[in-house]
Amino acid sequence: MSDDRFAALPAPPYYAVIFSSQRSEQDQAGYETTAARMVELVRAQPGFLGFESTRDGSGFGITAAYFDSEASIAAWRAQAEHAAARDLGHRLWYRRFELRVARVERAYGGPHKPSTHSASSA
Amino acid sequence: MSDDRFAALPAPPYYAVIFSSQRSEQDQAGYETTAARMVELVRAQPGFLGFESTRDGSGFGITAAYFDSEASIAAWRAQAEHAAARDLGHRLWYRRFELRVARVERAYGGPHKPSTHSASSA
Repeated sequence: MSDDRFAALPAPPYYAVIFSSQRSEQDQAGYETTAARMVELVRAQPGFLGFESTRDGSGFGITAAYFDSEASIAAWRAQAEHAAARDLGHRLWYRRFELRVARVERAYGGPHKPSTHSASSA
Repeated sequence: MSDDRFAALPAPPYYAVIFSSQRSEQDQAGYETTAARMVELVRAQPGFLGFESTRDGSGFGITAAYFDSEASIAAWRAQAEHAAARDLGHRLWYRRFELRVARVERAYGGPHKPSTHSASSA
C-alpha cells in the first residue's frame, strides 16, 4: 500500500535537499494547492530523481528531495513559480524551516529486493 | 513551541543519515520504548550532532540524524544495543525502510536568526 511513498533512486552518488519545517496554522487550502503544484513542477524538472515527505499532526514535516547534481538543484531553485511559492512559504506557511543540501554517498534499504535497493552498508 | 523539533547544528560540512520508514502495525509499545532508548543512546554517542524526526498518521516517517563524520556514523552503527534494535526494526517494526548517508555541504533556514542558522544559499 505504501511503496509509492518511497523514492525509487539510482545508485549513489546523487544529491539530497533535506527540508524540515513547522507549519504555521495559516492558509491550509493555499498551502495544499501550492504543495501539489510544486510536486507536479519538480517532477518535470531535469535531474529530479524523486522525493519522500511526511508531516505529523503537530505540523512538523520533513521532505527529502533527490536530484542528480548540484546544477539541477540550482535550476529548481531558480524556477520562477517555485521561487514565488518559496517566498510565500517563508512568509506565511512555515513558522520555521531548515534546509540542508547534501551529497548522498551510499544507501541501502529493506526488505531486500534487488530491483529497488542500491548496494553497500551504512 | 516547536523549536525543539529542530536540530541545532554547526556550520557544514557534517554528515546526515536519512532514514525513511513505513511502520508495520506490530508491537507499538515495544517500538516506542526502543525508539526512546535509541534517542537516549545516540545523544551520548561521540560525534552525534542532533536529529529531526516525524511520522504521519499512516506510519510513514523520516528521521534525519546528523553526525560530525563518517567515523561517528560507523561507531553508532556498531553500538551493540543499537544493532540489536536495528535488527528488530528490520524484522518487526518496519514494513519497509530506506537509509541514505550523505555529506551536508550547505544549509540555511528561517526565520533568519543569526544564532541558529548557518550560512549560504541552496
